[in-house]
Amino acid sequence: MSIHPTAIISESAVLGLDVTIGAFTIIYDNVEIGAGTVIESHCEIGIGNAMSESKVLVIGKNSLIRSHSIFYEGSTFGSELITGHRVTVREKTTAGLNLQIGTLSDIQGHCEIGDYVRFHSNVHIGQMSVIGNYVWIFPYVVLTNDPHPPSNILQGVRIKDFAAIATMSVLLPGAIIEEGVLVGAHSNLKGITEANFVYSGNPAVKVCATSKIKLQDGSGNPAYPWKERFKRGYPKSISDQW
Amino acid sequence: MSIHPTAIISESAVLGLDVTIGAFTIIYDNVEIGAGTVIESHCEIGIGNAMSESKVLVIGKNSLIRSHSIFYEGSTFGSELITGHRVTVREKTTAGLNLQIGTLSDIQGHCEIGDYVRFHSNVHIGQMSVIGNYVWIFPYVVLTNDPHPPSNILQGVRIKDFAAIATMSVLLPGAIIEEGVLVGAHSNLKGITEANFVYSGNPAVKVCATSKIKLQDGSGNPAYPWKERFKRGYPKSISDQW
Amino acid sequence: MSIHPTAIISESAVLGLDVTIGAFTIIYDNVEIGAGTVIESHCEIGIGNAMSESKVLVIGKNSLIRSHSIFYEGSTFGSELITGHRVTVREKTTAGLNLQIGTLSDIQGHCEIGDYVRFHSNVHIGQMSVIGNYVWIFPYVVLTNDPHPPSNILQGVRIKDFAAIATMSVLLPGAIIEEGVLVGAHSNLKGITEANFVYSGNPAVKVCATSKIKLQDGSGNPAYPWKERFKRGYPKSISDQW
Repeated sequence: MSIHPTAIISESAVLGLDVTIGAFTIIYDNVEIGAGTVIESHCEIGIGNAMSESKVLVIGKNSLIRSHSIFYEGSTFGSELITGHRVTVREKTTAGLNLQIGTLSDIQGHCEIGDYVRFHSNVHIGQMSVIGNYVWIFPYVVLTNDPHPPSNILQGVRIKDFAAIATMSVLLPGAIIEEGVLVGAHSNLKGITEANFVYSGNPAVKVCATSKIKLQDGSGNPAYPWKERFKRGYPKSISDQW
Repeated sequence: MSIHPTAIISESAVLGLDVTIGAFTIIYDNVEIGAGTVIESHCEIGIGNAMSESKVLVIGKNSLIRSHSIFYEGSTFGSELITGHRVTVREKTTAGLNLQIGTLSDIQGHCEIGDYVRFHSNVHIGQMSVIGNYVWIFPYVVLTNDPHPPSNILQGVRIKDFAAIATMSVLLPGAIIEEGVLVGAHSNLKGITEANFVYSGNPAVKVCATSKIKLQDGSGNPAYPWKERFKRGYPKSISDQW
Repeated sequence: MSIHPTAIISESAVLGLDVTIGAFTIIYDNVEIGAGTVIESHCEIGIGNAMSESKVLVIGKNSLIRSHSIFYEGSTFGSELITGHRVTVREKTTAGLNLQIGTLSDIQGHCEIGDYVRFHSNVHIGQMSVIGNYVWIFPYVVLTNDPHPPSNILQGVRIKDFAAIATMSVLLPGAIIEEGVLVGAHSNLKGITEANFVYSGNPAVKVCATSKIKLQDGSGNPAYPWKERFKRGYPKSISDQW
């Protein structure tokens, strides 16, 4: 256990073995932090609010929460969560193993996220989003939820396994991204999609099967499905079975 | 009064009754904080710069400034200001009652903002923006001001009462959003608009009267003007008179 | 020398004459900070990671790093670096004189940046970007690098002298922005460009020579090249010779 002397830790917080807490970080009451997890400096972990209903925040073991990050109580993360700096994660989100959340990303809460999902920097995940496994979301993507802004209606976005959403795209309320779909950069996508197709543009339209996109390495090999060629960061036991 | 022992408070700062200041927060000299206001941890309140001309920062009573937020001196906010985390508010902005500023939003200063305005997360309000009452601005919207970047010219955007600007839209320098206008997501809007119309696309074009948009609840009722159906967060004395 | 008593400074860090360090700031081991530089509160300077290879972080003299900013080790900045708040700068970036980095901007590392470059707020500079001198990049612009997301390929963007990239534009992997090009707001630009032309739209297309854009001041004078009319912030010895 390594707690910086300037950190402020509630006596009610439950810290596993070999947890590290950085300088100027605050850990509130209603928090369980798994063994081997590192929480860097200037963080706030376990903020309560009216919607968290005093449910505990669970951070899985061997996680890394980089500096200046903020987590509310009432969410649960599997082991090996990794965040960039200044992430914000609100209440009542459930995520599987090894979620990665890039610098400045903002998860608005009330979301379900599968295993091995990667959010790059500065993505915004609206409430009620449901995200499968092995999904990639690139910088400045926004998942919306309000079909009649402002309203009290929440139609979350759904993204299925192996989909990839490129930079600066907006997924409109209730959009469904099927397995293996690629959404091109700067797209504005509404409605449903077909698995393993490319959608692109503003408004986004169906472009072609993802298998039509070739690698630019002269091999003539298809670039998608990406799981056939890109295994970085996944356990071999998983990527061998894709 | 509840001041965390790690907070650094200037003796010149004027704090009202029952003000709460969180850990690792800095309050500078030239600040007046209204009674009942809560300023959370890791904030900086009242930074001076060359453009603030040593004018005081006034935060109205019963406000809530969430953690990691930064305010410059020289702005004035009415009561019940509510911010998310990590907001940045520069000098010489004037706002009315109950402004809400979402996480990561950046108000560049020299703006006028009316009553009951809501900025969602990560909006960027350029200098010289003039915003009416009951306006909604959604995530990743940018209000620009420079018609010939880079230049010394500042043509602020003007947004009138009850307008709503959806996610990831850019309002170009000098754009005028009339009362009740809805700007669709991911739009790029230049020039003037007509009240109670929908504008959408890149470039944005006039689509239809807002009254043509129906609720998706099977009622056949129009979704706009939104003030007819959405009252959350407004005092009844106001929303009854809309 | 003015070090706030709450700051945490490694004994290995090398601080020049008259350096100022704010409250709650952490300076790690492998850092050289030039004379006259100010580092404000709540910063982290010199974070190590696997990719920084223990190379030193050099901040040039007379720089200003505003509060809540984060720099990794392994980058080098010329004198008079100026940042906004909450900037993030990863390892192995080299920048020349008087780089300005706006609030919330994120430089992902492994970039080359020339002299007198200005990033406005909330820009995202992907790895392997190469940026010349006197370049302007406006809010919410993203420089990408992955042609087949996700992949291990990094095709950085190249931007040459005097180019200006307007708000919310995406430069796709390998894009080359030639000298004096203007990219309009909310553009999605792929491939190569011709010097001193305007590109705009999603997808971006060549619009006209920049010299066709006239100032809106009634003079009939061309607005571009901007270097003929806008000299703010550049030493006279430089702007006289443009």
